[in-house]
Amino acid sequence: MGKSDSRLRQILAQNLRRFRQTKNLSQEGLADAAGLHRTFVGSVERCERNISLDNIEKLAKALDVTPATLFEDSAP
Amino acid sequence: MGKSDSRLRQILAQNLRRFRQTKNLSQEGLADAAGLHRTFVGSVERCERNISLDNIEKLAKALDVTPATLFEDSAP
Repeated sequence: MGKSDSRLRQILAQNLRRFRQTKNLSQEGLADAAGLHRTFVGSVERCERNISLDNIEKLAKALDVTPATLFEDSAP
Repeated sequence: MGKSDSRLRQILAQNLRRFRQTKNLSQEGLADAAGLHRTFVGSVERCERNISLDNIEKLAKALDVTPATLFEDSAP
């Protein structure tokens, strides 16, 4: 799946990276914690993947944040 | 795809129905407005579908709400 101009993919990618780094997790470490493939988090952070709701829920749980938090737009 | 116990599917389903009804849209009407199949909204509202990020974005735009709003848990 190619890169997308989707604004929502960008917001999710930014939040995912921010919360992951706050927890000092690598992309592979977060993937492991969420029970996802080790390349999965990287592809989401590059906006390449049209991630599904169930996997969003897994990532939010692994990061210990609410799913809504992952969609908050922190752009100025 | 079978029904899921996913809490996030339930939250999205409740919010989708609530905002749709506020706009006096039928499930088919919202699907049309979002460019999705006419049975799609019903299946999401029944928690049957593992909806993708791009389709979440389409529904939020059609309802004129932010995607984050669709994930807010209004449970007591």
